[in-house]
Amino acid sequence: MEISPLQKERLKYQPKLPGMLRHGISDICVKEGEETASVSDQDKIRELFPNTYGKREIIFEKGQNTSAAKRQVVGVILSGGQAPGGHNVISGLYDALKATDKDNVLLGFKGGPSGLVDDDYVEFTDEFIDAYRNTGGFDIIGSGRTKIETKEQFEAAAATAKKHGLTAVVIIGGDDSNTNAAVLAEYFAANNTGVQVIGCPKTIDGDLKNDDIDCSFGFDTATKTYSELIGNIERDANSAKKYWHFVKVMGRSASHVALECALETQPNVCLIGEEVAEKKLSLSQIADQIADSVEKRSKTEGNFGVVIIPEGIVEFVPEFGVLIREISEMLAGSKTEEFNALPSWEDKKEYIRKGLTEESFKVFDILPEMIQKQLFLERDPHGNVQVSLIESEKLFAELVKNKLEERRKAGTYTGKFSTQFHFFGYEGRCAFPSNFDADYCYSLGYNAFMLIQYGYTGYLSKVSHLNRPAEEWVAGGMPITKMMNMERRNGQDKPVIRKALVDLEGKPFKYFEAHRAEWAAHTCYTYPGAIQYYGPSDVCDITTRTLALEKG
Amino acid sequence: MEISPLQKERLKYQPKLPGMLRHGISDICVKEGEETASVSDQDKIRELFPNTYGKREIIFEKGQNTSAAKRQVVGVILSGGQAPGGHNVISGLYDALKATDKDNVLLGFKGGPSGLVDDDYVEFTDEFIDAYRNTGGFDIIGSGRTKIETKEQFEAAAATAKKHGLTAVVIIGGDDSNTNAAVLAEYFAANNTGVQVIGCPKTIDGDLKNDDIDCSFGFDTATKTYSELIGNIERDANSAKKYWHFVKVMGRSASHVALECALETQPNVCLIGEEVAEKKLSLSQIADQIADSVEKRSKTEGNFGVVIIPEGIVEFVPEFGVLIREISEMLAGSKTEEFNALPSWEDKKEYIRKGLTEESFKVFDILPEMIQKQLFLERDPHGNVQVSLIESEKLFAELVKNKLEERRKAGTYTGKFSTQFHFFGYEGRCAFPSNFDADYCYSLGYNAFMLIQYGYTGYLSKVSHLNRPAEEWVAGGMPITKMMNMERRNGQDKPVIRKALVDLEGKPFKYFEAHRAEWAAHTCYTYPGAIQYYGPSDVCDITTRTLALEKG
Repeated sequence: MEISPLQKERLKYQPKLPGMLRHGISDICVKEGEETASVSDQDKIRELFPNTYGKREIIFEKGQNTSAAKRQVVGVILSGGQAPGGHNVISGLYDALKATDKDNVLLGFKGGPSGLVDDDYVEFTDEFIDAYRNTGGFDIIGSGRTKIETKEQFEAAAATAKKHGLTAVVIIGGDDSNTNAAVLAEYFAANNTGVQVIGCPKTIDGDLKNDDIDCSFGFDTATKTYSELIGNIERDANSAKKYWHFVKVMGRSASHVALECALETQPNVCLIGEEVAEKKLSLSQIADQIADSVEKRSKTEGNFGVVIIPEGIVEFVPEFGVLIREISEMLAGSKTEEFNALPSWEDKKEYIRKGLTEESFKVFDILPEMIQKQLFLERDPHGNVQVSLIESEKLFAELVKNKLEERRKAGTYTGKFSTQFHFFGYEGRCAFPSNFDADYCYSLGYNAFMLIQYGYTGYLSKVSHLNRPAEEWVAGGMPITKMMNMERRNGQDKPVIRKALVDLEGKPFKYFEAHRAEWAAHTCYTYPGAIQYYGPSDVCDITTRTLALEKG
Repeated sequence: MEISPLQKERLKYQPKLPGMLRHGISDICVKEGEETASVSDQDKIRELFPNTYGKREIIFEKGQNTSAAKRQVVGVILSGGQAPGGHNVISGLYDALKATDKDNVLLGFKGGPSGLVDDDYVEFTDEFIDAYRNTGGFDIIGSGRTKIETKEQFEAAAATAKKHGLTAVVIIGGDDSNTNAAVLAEYFAANNTGVQVIGCPKTIDGDLKNDDIDCSFGFDTATKTYSELIGNIERDANSAKKYWHFVKVMGRSASHVALECALETQPNVCLIGEEVAEKKLSLSQIADQIADSVEKRSKTEGNFGVVIIPEGIVEFVPEFGVLIREISEMLAGSKTEEFNALPSWEDKKEYIRKGLTEESFKVFDILPEMIQKQLFLERDPHGNVQVSLIESEKLFAELVKNKLEERRKAGTYTGKFSTQFHFFGYEGRCAFPSNFDADYCYSLGYNAFMLIQYGYTGYLSKVSHLNRPAEEWVAGGMPITKMMNMERRNGQDKPVIRKALVDLEGKPFKYFEAHRAEWAAHTCYTYPGAIQYYGPSDVCDITTRTLALEKG
């Protein structure tokens, strides 16, 4: 198989472990902290997790390893969307496991949690692992989105575990997957299977973080990749001086990716969904904000600029959310057929006018026709509007164009407004992990095995103090139940890990807020360039601005 | 001004010069070769360039500098689209100029050739230049697409030159801009202005190359940036195994960018415009080629893949070209209004059916409606179809979908075909130049000054043997007229530098052709990763596969 020169070199990279894990397996001891309680709904969570609730936080230290000698057969699963570094979690886990005992076994369950249910697996060898060290992607065993929820699935998972003599399962995933890890841990404990479950925090979205998780892995590499591209586009905009570039970046539920990219590149405008929701901004108000920058810059800097838009933005706009709900109700059941049977778009629009409240029709009416049609054409099997398919970058560009035409008529704007569109998502989820993600992920995997060796279950592999050099990172574990609360999901109260939204009182947003007026009016672009794996430490070892500001 | 850590470090990078230019200005002597003749139409080109035609190729060597001492006032112009390394051409030029005599002056004419006509300039200083070393973009002085063509423009340029006492002008641009450089050189010579003109070969498209130009600058960095992203997308495709990604890359007139990206990433399919034209492939045949890969892979590898499409592909499809011409004729003059006045799309389609030949209507008829409408809605001020706005990646995906439906009915295909789309252009034109482009561009600029010092005009700054280490590069100059021929442009015969298309008999295409069947059926992706500026030489100093194959 042909591999690239960079891949050849990256295979040789030895990721950095936290200082306390560098002395060899036999010199790692455990220090237990306080008993924990879930962040809220303690009684309910305790009731749901009688066997795994309330356990103690633990930290590893240098000292005599006191764990009981035991042959370990561990299974590992990649769950959900790709994030750079997944392969390193597995190689860290493998190395710790093999360093402890050559006879220990690591199985990779293929295609996500369904691999455990269906007993679809591969056994890792040195040669196998060595081909994936420090590479991006989840192609080593694939990933999937199945949740283990039904009685049949739990029993099948237990049967697979029994068949292989599994002592533990490591689940690498986002908030939902780690919630699922806690549920599986509880099931295995309740049924005395002896199988431990450890979770690892993964997601490029950056929305899996809390008091215990500094950041999820992959966020660093993905945002660096998007920032590279946004910086290049900024430089192009500033060279050609003829386009406004609207750049949409991944992140539906939270705007961490957009915010981090903005901190890295200092664009003219960056929308933050959480702020839009908090201030109850309308589409028109958002368009006016962008148009203000366009108008101001047209008089000083020129007719060019860069706007970053988080993928999920429209879902944060209150009036848009109402519109979506009204459309879904309007077309419920057989009414979809009635609607589809209308011969022309004009007829349909009349139907829509009658079916919506006056307020919602006003919102609908200012949308570009292309978007109006998307709302009715692109619906999922349940008849819901597929918000993720709405081309919000084009929506806002069109609304801004209308605003500028009004201003042109009013005589305040005489510029030119030409646009280019970009969407960055798949470009960054499988990049070679940055040194930070390579080190962090390897440490998470290595540390996960230490938790297994010491007999913990229902824990998240926790590596913290990530804003410091790896030498100073702190390795340990935290009961997943500690991060949980009850939330309404599909009409039922469910125990889940609370998703972290952008904190409007947090330092990253505050920094952005303090600078954005200047960035909007002037040209303050910064050009991060491509991720560097070699060379000056300032260039290749620093992590995100978000983490630096949060912890700095 | 805030700058990124990478930019901070890159400002310190000292680009490598060809060995023969490393001994200091006073140790560079000139060796003249044979008199040259244009590649064809010798009589006509000689007639058009009586003062600059037929000059000798020159090479620089180590030896006593014999140029006449003379204070130099040089102007530099960036022309056309951005390409990584433009700033380095200017810094190389500046360094050679200042190393020769501190009193020499470098002026940057702003916003392209119009800066010379309008006398819009800046004088460079150490501090100014130092802020742009080894950075991407053309933002140092901006760029533009004006050509100096009219009598008034020539006179204005001469007046600007006279005002500043210019001794030379360096034009950094593509084939058109270098043709314009030759014309300006001839004008200055014919009018005894004493102003020399030197060109430098720039374009990310890679279509400015010939016996004398190994490659234009910027091609290396831009294709590396696109290949990084395509590799990341391939890894994502191979991890998630659920999408076919259609990736369009810049390059309208030639498919060098697509071909280089294919050589770097080994996608399942890559279309090459020149092959499509040569084999007179129809849209249907191209769609079948892609569908063959989709069908085959659905049975073995899965329902995923990556297709690279050059931006200009549809213009290479003979039947599509005919269709476009027929549409333009059909809507000539007042007929556009007649057409636009038709009330519905059905009426318009009927009008189109009557206006086109049967063959062209068949071609039109298989296009997705979205593309059909694009052909009529997006027309330039002259009424021409704007081919560059046609979303060819979506066009081919749609055609492939139709093919697959036919195959599904025929029972040969049972897969799933979900698509994602990408277009990479602006992402790569302003990246930090790779070490190769940083070195090459700096050498081009440095070398351009040596040509000026030795009194040459109408020359292209030539640095060759680029497949070898910089130490072994050969620096010199070639009369631009040597690369010219006569071509029909807008109904007139014009002297131009011949554009290099992908050579279907050349080694890069032959390599691709020999491997593509395997790449189409199997998963042979290679993941180049981000451009590296530091670290192992194999990773950070190698140039394109295209150049390696051509010269290797």
